[in-house]
Amino acid sequence: MLKKTLLAASLATLSLSSASAFAIENVDLLIKNGQILTMDREKTIFDNGLIAIRDNKIVAVTDGSDINEYKSVKTIDADGDIVMPGLINTHTHASMTVFRSLADDVPDRLHRYIFPLEKKLVSREMVRIGAQLGNVEMVKGGVTTYADMYYFEDEVAKTVDQIGMRAILGETIIQFPVASAKTPEDGIKYAEKLIHEYKDHPRITMAFAPHGPYTNSTETLQTIAKLSMKYDVPVMMHLAESDREREVIAKRSGGLSPVKYMESIGALNENLVAAHVIDANEEDIAILKKYDVGIAHNMSANIKSAKGVSPALQMFNDGLRIGLGTDGPMSGNTLSTIDEFNQVAKVHKLVNKDRAAMPPKNVIEMATIGAARALHMEDKVGSLEVGKLADVIVIDTKAPNMVPVYNPYSALVYSAYATNVKHTIVDGKVIMENRNVLTVNEDSIRKEALQFADKVRQTVIESGEIVQ
Amino acid sequence: MLKKTLLAASLATLSLSSASAFAIENVDLLIKNGQILTMDREKTIFDNGLIAIRDNKIVAVTDGSDINEYKSVKTIDADGDIVMPGLINTHTHASMTVFRSLADDVPDRLHRYIFPLEKKLVSREMVRIGAQLGNVEMVKGGVTTYADMYYFEDEVAKTVDQIGMRAILGETIIQFPVASAKTPEDGIKYAEKLIHEYKDHPRITMAFAPHGPYTNSTETLQTIAKLSMKYDVPVMMHLAESDREREVIAKRSGGLSPVKYMESIGALNENLVAAHVIDANEEDIAILKKYDVGIAHNMSANIKSAKGVSPALQMFNDGLRIGLGTDGPMSGNTLSTIDEFNQVAKVHKLVNKDRAAMPPKNVIEMATIGAARALHMEDKVGSLEVGKLADVIVIDTKAPNMVPVYNPYSALVYSAYATNVKHTIVDGKVIMENRNVLTVNEDSIRKEALQFADKVRQTVIESGEIVQ
Repeated sequence: MLKKTLLAASLATLSLSSASAFAIENVDLLIKNGQILTMDREKTIFDNGLIAIRDNKIVAVTDGSDINEYKSVKTIDADGDIVMPGLINTHTHASMTVFRSLADDVPDRLHRYIFPLEKKLVSREMVRIGAQLGNVEMVKGGVTTYADMYYFEDEVAKTVDQIGMRAILGETIIQFPVASAKTPEDGIKYAEKLIHEYKDHPRITMAFAPHGPYTNSTETLQTIAKLSMKYDVPVMMHLAESDREREVIAKRSGGLSPVKYMESIGALNENLVAAHVIDANEEDIAILKKYDVGIAHNMSANIKSAKGVSPALQMFNDGLRIGLGTDGPMSGNTLSTIDEFNQVAKVHKLVNKDRAAMPPKNVIEMATIGAARALHMEDKVGSLEVGKLADVIVIDTKAPNMVPVYNPYSALVYSAYATNVKHTIVDGKVIMENRNVLTVNEDSIRKEALQFADKVRQTVIESGEIVQ
Repeated sequence: MLKKTLLAASLATLSLSSASAFAIENVDLLIKNGQILTMDREKTIFDNGLIAIRDNKIVAVTDGSDINEYKSVKTIDADGDIVMPGLINTHTHASMTVFRSLADDVPDRLHRYIFPLEKKLVSREMVRIGAQLGNVEMVKGGVTTYADMYYFEDEVAKTVDQIGMRAILGETIIQFPVASAKTPEDGIKYAEKLIHEYKDHPRITMAFAPHGPYTNSTETLQTIAKLSMKYDVPVMMHLAESDREREVIAKRSGGLSPVKYMESIGALNENLVAAHVIDANEEDIAILKKYDVGIAHNMSANIKSAKGVSPALQMFNDGLRIGLGTDGPMSGNTLSTIDEFNQVAKVHKLVNKDRAAMPPKNVIEMATIGAARALHMEDKVGSLEVGKLADVIVIDTKAPNMVPVYNPYSALVYSAYATNVKHTIVDGKVIMENRNVLTVNEDSIRKEALQFADKVRQTVIESGEIVQ
């Protein structure tokens, strides 16, 4: 309201004043003097560009020559640093930060270690404390949107709301009793309730998150697929991830691959975001493309667990909706997709025996507009274009590891640390400036996490009930 | 000697006075309240430990219970952070920072791009400017010792001396004319001169650096091997790195592998530090072990160039002298071996299809005492033990990516950034404190590098003479 009044006032004044004054446009935030990687269709780069933001939207992205045409409430001088779309983490379990560095390399870890651990320790408190810490890590690492799968996602939502990020939050549905639901049916109801409650939230979308095809019944998967179409909300699921999954599904379906099984039961549609997709052949990939399924590519977690390398290069080249994810902090183990860049670029070169495979530009695409496509959000975020939501990050190019920058994509992929992110802007608001998170208290969040870690130590390590 | 005298003095006094006052030992630097990873033979960890340093040596590493027995000129409170041996980068070309992010993924890059680039641009000025920047990056990333191969290593030496690091500097010898030598013979003479000049330097050792077996004649390699034994100095060389090398050497030797060829000409000995060693079978590995050759394992560079994965896991398990290296910043592209940790741990799991392969503890060993062994410096550095030189780093465990730490090795390998290094101590001197490098001016070093980068742009990109 204030803003409209101001605009009217300036228009009134303008009519009485000089012509040059007429071009002035009032905006809320200007980012000037940046090397802007727009990640638009043409991959336009402005070497000394300008971004103007009003409310939560981008109103101009230019070469900077029109800088005198804007009057802004706040201006950030990027001073030659890289300005790019906020990163989109397409797959994580943020609350698991409180378990990070526990029993990292245990064989059959999910079933032998993680599920028992979660049975003992997942609670509303744990989910909140872990998500708070994960959010801080992501904001400091340039992530502005993330897709989460866990329990008590309403607790995650409160933390996302508070810090000011954007998120798709999927309540996990799984065939055994968990803290937030005794049965898969209860899990579905839990998710439905959250979907209704958050349907008008500007930054949060609630979703269904069936854990995997092999950890849910056919009926559960079908019900979720139908409900996702009914409510038009995302379904997030681990798919084609492990040998165990392949075996269970083959037994259940008479030999089908996980992807073909999902097709056969009518559970593939454009609302699905499939995480990992390691175990997929050309036919599977064609099926995923046909149903417009989004793909979350989690290189770091996949190689750490020795599960293999996803055919992400082919999926990218075939035009599938594919973006980078970190997986959870017991898997990845960090939450900024900047930490994936290096590994994604290099491991695809290694396994394809081709140093030109997966060039840095494609990696940055999968971190931004590609990730937005994977989540079906490409009309809203993922690139710096007029009309899009203003999720923007600035990367420090003066840190010694980033000097010099002959090619910004190479510098980002082969040299950047998550800690090189200097400012993080979500929905037009600066939520980190000069590495200080402005919307939450990082110190108290860390303290709560460390206190919870003591509880984890007592439960897990000292009791000896769960093997470390 | 001093210590024994002091001890004798205090024992003498003790008999006359109260026990508590007499135990006081004067030291120069105390690091208290750290989780100390000693990396000694037993991998002792002190959870709330203490390190005492006098002059340039470690005089005590304890569980902290004796803290009142020391009086120190300076005390660093690690406040629960990880304290560990300074990292040792076993292979780099630090001066090449000024070329970082140029033409990263060009096929046959060394011969098609890098050699022509160096012919145009290598100079004393370039070497100095690039090394200064590389040194800052390494100190900020916890590297206290590095092994360098380049031209005009006396220029590198001056920068190492100034910043206060420790280094082995190998003057490159190669079969074509280079900026510092018209012929390999001139290169050898250049190296010999530096070896004489620096023979008494407390932190710098000069070395021979024949580029590779395939880029030098048999005679040159034999001469260098003999001279290295005569002067007892290291020889650093790329070995068993590429298909081209294998072809050239096979042709020259009637089918021998690069390692066997080196043995056949008498060029393997305990002074050799071989970088890469990707193309080595069991026989080759046994030969390298027999001659006590040190190995520099550069995972990040090797997979980026799609050259393959070194059998480093086997070499480590077989007890070879093996440590981590970053390779140069046109290859790696960063200079802290912390950036290697993640990739080393994960890629060996991937290629061995075993999530328990290459556990974090072994990675940290290869970054510290293993790297010291690779450079035959294990009696001086690489672990925190009484009598060793005081090269110590402190890693911030309060950064969100490092919270919580259930297992310090896992946290370092799977979560740490080079920027999590908080303090860097070399030879008993704090050369970085709270991320501020104290011994050089980081800003002016960056400015010089950026100015040189403009010259590179003009020469390489704008002239179009060297294909980008």
